[in-house]
Amino acid sequence: MNGQWQLISRPVGMVKESDFGYVEEPVPDIGDNELLIRNLYFAFEPAMRGWITDAKSYIAPVQLGEVMRASTVGQVIESNNPDFKPGDFVTGMAGWQEYFITDGSAGLMGRGASKIPDGIAPELMMSALGGTGLTAYFGMLDIGKPKTGDVVVVSGAAGATGSVAGQIAKIKGASKVVGIAGGSEKCRWLTSELGYDAAIDYKSENVAKRLRQECPDGINIFFDNVGGQILDDALLNMAMNGRVVLCGGISSYNELELPPGPKNYMQLVIQRCTMEGFILIDYLDRAEEAVNDLSSWIQSGQLKHAEDIQEGIENTPKTFLRLFEGKNIGKQLLKIAEPPL
Amino acid sequence: MNGQWQLISRPVGMVKESDFGYVEEPVPDIGDNELLIRNLYFAFEPAMRGWITDAKSYIAPVQLGEVMRASTVGQVIESNNPDFKPGDFVTGMAGWQEYFITDGSAGLMGRGASKIPDGIAPELMMSALGGTGLTAYFGMLDIGKPKTGDVVVVSGAAGATGSVAGQIAKIKGASKVVGIAGGSEKCRWLTSELGYDAAIDYKSENVAKRLRQECPDGINIFFDNVGGQILDDALLNMAMNGRVVLCGGISSYNELELPPGPKNYMQLVIQRCTMEGFILIDYLDRAEEAVNDLSSWIQSGQLKHAEDIQEGIENTPKTFLRLFEGKNIGKQLLKIAEPPL
Repeated sequence: MNGQWQLISRPVGMVKESDFGYVEEPVPDIGDNELLIRNLYFAFEPAMRGWITDAKSYIAPVQLGEVMRASTVGQVIESNNPDFKPGDFVTGMAGWQEYFITDGSAGLMGRGASKIPDGIAPELMMSALGGTGLTAYFGMLDIGKPKTGDVVVVSGAAGATGSVAGQIAKIKGASKVVGIAGGSEKCRWLTSELGYDAAIDYKSENVAKRLRQECPDGINIFFDNVGGQILDDALLNMAMNGRVVLCGGISSYNELELPPGPKNYMQLVIQRCTMEGFILIDYLDRAEEAVNDLSSWIQSGQLKHAEDIQEGIENTPKTFLRLFEGKNIGKQLLKIAEPPL
Repeated sequence: MNGQWQLISRPVGMVKESDFGYVEEPVPDIGDNELLIRNLYFAFEPAMRGWITDAKSYIAPVQLGEVMRASTVGQVIESNNPDFKPGDFVTGMAGWQEYFITDGSAGLMGRGASKIPDGIAPELMMSALGGTGLTAYFGMLDIGKPKTGDVVVVSGAAGATGSVAGQIAKIKGASKVVGIAGGSEKCRWLTSELGYDAAIDYKSENVAKRLRQECPDGINIFFDNVGGQILDDALLNMAMNGRVVLCGGISSYNELELPPGPKNYMQLVIQRCTMEGFILIDYLDRAEEAVNDLSSWIQSGQLKHAEDIQEGIENTPKTFLRLFEGKNIGKQLLKIAEPPL
């Protein structure tokens, strides 16, 4: 039987465990050219909150009664496809279910499967080398365009994307990288493990004041995963010709109505700044370049990665909620099975 | 005697006539290399509201007791400077006063004087060929980067900058230019005189709905002079990879506190758009290029310009307020004297 978590109600305000329902269905036989995958890990991202809202966006919403969309790592169990053999580790968007049948055709954002190269840990394929790592890579490099000597600030800095984004800025010569995160444990991790030069705990500190202290000549790049008051505080501290990289806005994802926008947006005029949004799916044809760079930085020890791994398919919605409770440090994963082969 | 309007109190909320005081002072003798200018016109821009607020900005605030900063056109009365002779028309930032002494050294934004080329009407030098015309030129071309076929929307479209910006987009091949303005008279002017393809009266129409109707495939360039609800409406209608040119935000200039920002700013992510601010002073070394292009478009009839000319130095603060009352069509000027020579 294939255990799966389906979307059963559209969340109103904060997403709840009860917005998802667990069902079991028989696993069908595979057809010509198809393969059967047993999922081992589910990956969680704040953007998934947007996928269950019925609004026009960059990707169609998950329908009620549909398996929740999510990126996954699994292992091939059976294969009628010459490109895959039992035991292969694959990554894809199989969603919240134990088993998945595909012809293997689609890539990172499609409901297919891509083979994971030998020697790469499956967890890594979902964190620093997965969607969030690639988002950090293209957002920081293509939108932020860090230059030697830049002062870079990252919000949501202890999350899967933020933690990688700040380290990339440092690798590219930023003179100072400041992270904004919630809680002293995350802040300590940023400075002691990831090489961030400073960390601001938005739960206990005055972010605007600390940004003025840490960035007396202004922020050259603000990489934003949060929005809300933190974006406004950063806008007030931008340097001339600075860039605001809009990656996400987790502070508003569970709001019943859109909260007010950044009241300091006219600082973009006063300081001649750019604020630009981007989405990873536009960069998938350059995924190999990103994976190569990220892998080599990991091997050389310049890029650290971290995963928060929960266990058990019964904990799937609960694990998703950890993102919005600010519980994860690094990539939020759920392990639902040991490699069976 | 030199009649002058000084800033005597910092406005709180809506600027009032009583924030300025009229005084007369003797006109001093000119020194070596100096010239005495009699001002003929004052020019008014919404940005001047920012210059009398005591906040860090791109230019130092006007101090209490100082002559109000403004761009001007005047005529040289006396000159000890070989570059200027009596009768020359000059433009500069002489401020709200009848007479002005300078060594002629500073340019467009400084307290100096630049000679107006023969054959150019002084009013034109303050409108389409002045600061607001150049702002439209660089904002539309360098930040908006119009391409053939683009759909372009301009807010504050009947103002001095907006009216020029939309026409430049059309000259550069925009397939459709839509103006947003207040009142049916302005809207009629945009479509019947300036060649705008459509106009939306924000005072009587639902801007969001009209934008959806007029721009069914989205807005490629939104040139914003207004901010507030109009910016939010435009953000909801952006096309993929669109550009929001932040030129101004007149809707908030007289607010006691900064109003909420654009709640739809995350559309910049969903549609992968850029929102970018700019200020004319960064482009002054390219002023000649702009004046040449704008002049040739005016001569060929492709670019129309309009001035709202009030009269009498006693009406200076009242004329400034016309900008915020939405009374002007085209450039707001005040004529304070006939050419004396």
